[in-house]
Amino acid sequence: MTTFMKTLLLLLPLATLAASAADRPYGLVIHGGAGVIERSALSPKREAEYRAKLAEALNAGYAVLEKGGASLDAVTAAINVMEDSPLFNAGKGAVFNADGICELDASIMDGRTQAAGAVAGVHRIKNPINLARDVMAKSEHVMMVGDGAEIFARSLGYEMVPNEYFQTDWRREQLKKAQEKEKSGKERTAAVPADYFTRTLRWGTVGCVALDRAGNLAAGTSTGGMTNKKFGRVGDAPIIGAGTYASNATCAVSATGWGEFFIRVGVARDIAAQMEYRGTPLQAAAAATIAKVGRLGGDGGVIALDAQGNVAMEFNSPGMYRAVRLSHRPATVAIYGDEAK
Amino acid sequence: MTTFMKTLLLLLPLATLAASAADRPYGLVIHGGAGVIERSALSPKREAEYRAKLAEALNAGYAVLEKGGASLDAVTAAINVMEDSPLFNAGKGAVFNADGICELDASIMDGRTQAAGAVAGVHRIKNPINLARDVMAKSEHVMMVGDGAEIFARSLGYEMVPNEYFQTDWRREQLKKAQEKEKSGKERTAAVPADYFTRTLRWGTVGCVALDRAGNLAAGTSTGGMTNKKFGRVGDAPIIGAGTYASNATCAVSATGWGEFFIRVGVARDIAAQMEYRGTPLQAAAAATIAKVGRLGGDGGVIALDAQGNVAMEFNSPGMYRAVRLSHRPATVAIYGDEAK
Repeated sequence: MTTFMKTLLLLLPLATLAASAADRPYGLVIHGGAGVIERSALSPKREAEYRAKLAEALNAGYAVLEKGGASLDAVTAAINVMEDSPLFNAGKGAVFNADGICELDASIMDGRTQAAGAVAGVHRIKNPINLARDVMAKSEHVMMVGDGAEIFARSLGYEMVPNEYFQTDWRREQLKKAQEKEKSGKERTAAVPADYFTRTLRWGTVGCVALDRAGNLAAGTSTGGMTNKKFGRVGDAPIIGAGTYASNATCAVSATGWGEFFIRVGVARDIAAQMEYRGTPLQAAAAATIAKVGRLGGDGGVIALDAQGNVAMEFNSPGMYRAVRLSHRPATVAIYGDEAK
Repeated sequence: MTTFMKTLLLLLPLATLAASAADRPYGLVIHGGAGVIERSALSPKREAEYRAKLAEALNAGYAVLEKGGASLDAVTAAINVMEDSPLFNAGKGAVFNADGICELDASIMDGRTQAAGAVAGVHRIKNPINLARDVMAKSEHVMMVGDGAEIFARSLGYEMVPNEYFQTDWRREQLKKAQEKEKSGKERTAAVPADYFTRTLRWGTVGCVALDRAGNLAAGTSTGGMTNKKFGRVGDAPIIGAGTYASNATCAVSATGWGEFFIRVGVARDIAAQMEYRGTPLQAAAAATIAKVGRLGGDGGVIALDAQGNVAMEFNSPGMYRAVRLSHRPATVAIYGDEAK
């Protein structure tokens, strides 16, 4: 072997290291809810609106990452776009609870430190994901519920919005239909598209998982919960380990689905646990966890991203609003089950 | 081989089966909170009261199991005794929040079906674990918070107790001390026994895991949370997967500790996940999870029981009120770290 060749061999690991830092994948995945989303029930105009808004949220998050920003910032940037849009069941456009008001939940987790924050049952916080993040960053707590969470928000100078800010006519209409069905005892029939309103919009939730250029993962989820929910019901979205989980050692996950089943399975953590304890690849882990939800009788989906930039978008419902943009693959926006996962 | 020997060999599996059904272990483990519990800080009289009440709770649960009752019934029976006692931070004797009232959380999980129920931030429910169980059994939801949970309780005919029912002088004194320390900025010093009141009683929580004669596991946890808690803070006790988890396939777990860390680690589910995904035995799994909590800076403990009757009582705090009674080993009641685990 010549000295030249030996030098080359010595330098190779360094070159690989430099290349891997430069080529390190980064990017994000978002969802806007899973459920009975079928072509027959979504007008071309409405469909175009969803695709445009998903792309806008995706690009808002990607812009943060592209310029070297933190995955936590990408998560909040993407979710804020969806919270501010009346199309999704989070922030403006959230579903109504049984009392006819919007009641919001959100959570966020930092994969680097495993710090987490969550709020549940807030009524006047424009962007609940931001408050969840402040619970994580500016309090000693992980979870705050109800009026207490809003008192904390006030102490940080949050402006309170009237509940009417969140309320939209089409969601009010859904509440009316849900309550009529409840009265007639037909709430549980599976007919589509007759059930479109209750089934689809029950599970609408938004979420984002992101991987930044420093290799840090983060996950966040924001929701209005379930149409016609009663009794201070809380679903999986604000539950760390159920709706949201992130650890650099495994993956970041945000879930959307029938929250009761997602809590029982501990969906987000279950995916990470399979990676952590038996080395299951991300996609296989996500599929196994959603299958577990299905066996219990639940439906919904997840988005997940690992530190290598592998993506999973897994759901057992007919559709899931979703989009992905990564540094190493073309961006996609999808809605129906027969589109690319 | 003779026909007699062949017959014997054929019958052997049946005999084993019959023996294993008769010998199948059953029993329960309870905890009454983990924290800085040291001999110097607990008078002999008070210590005797704790030991007697732990034994009473243990025997109440065991009586249910002995006569063939369900593990869920044993869990509620044992927890009810501790909720009704002013000694523990659950039900009567709960700690005060920053507003000077008692605010209670509880959760329960059925290992057979993985059904679960939880309530958080209730103020007038005498036995929160019973309401958590009714959320599981009598609603479509898993978690209800605040006034909504109490409206649900009313709809089931629960009698509401005034918040004064829960309030005790020694807990009021603890709140006063905690608030004085907060004002003086010394809240985080580690001195003992000066800190006994804030540190010990912060983490006081009660819980029970049980295995019945039919081989079904169940877990439950009930708490008043953290002294001087603000902003509708919720800890791990009502979070399925953090404070409580049960699955016949793995184990039943109830946790008590610095709830924020227990949520981030997803303590109860993390123990079960190690068993499920890498076959770790119960005790090793519990130790690994509590070590993980410790690495993040948290403290507390867990009780856990698997379907074979193996027990883990693991904590990284100086003490944990705990007791175990199983069909196949002598009953024990313990408080300090140097007593039998």
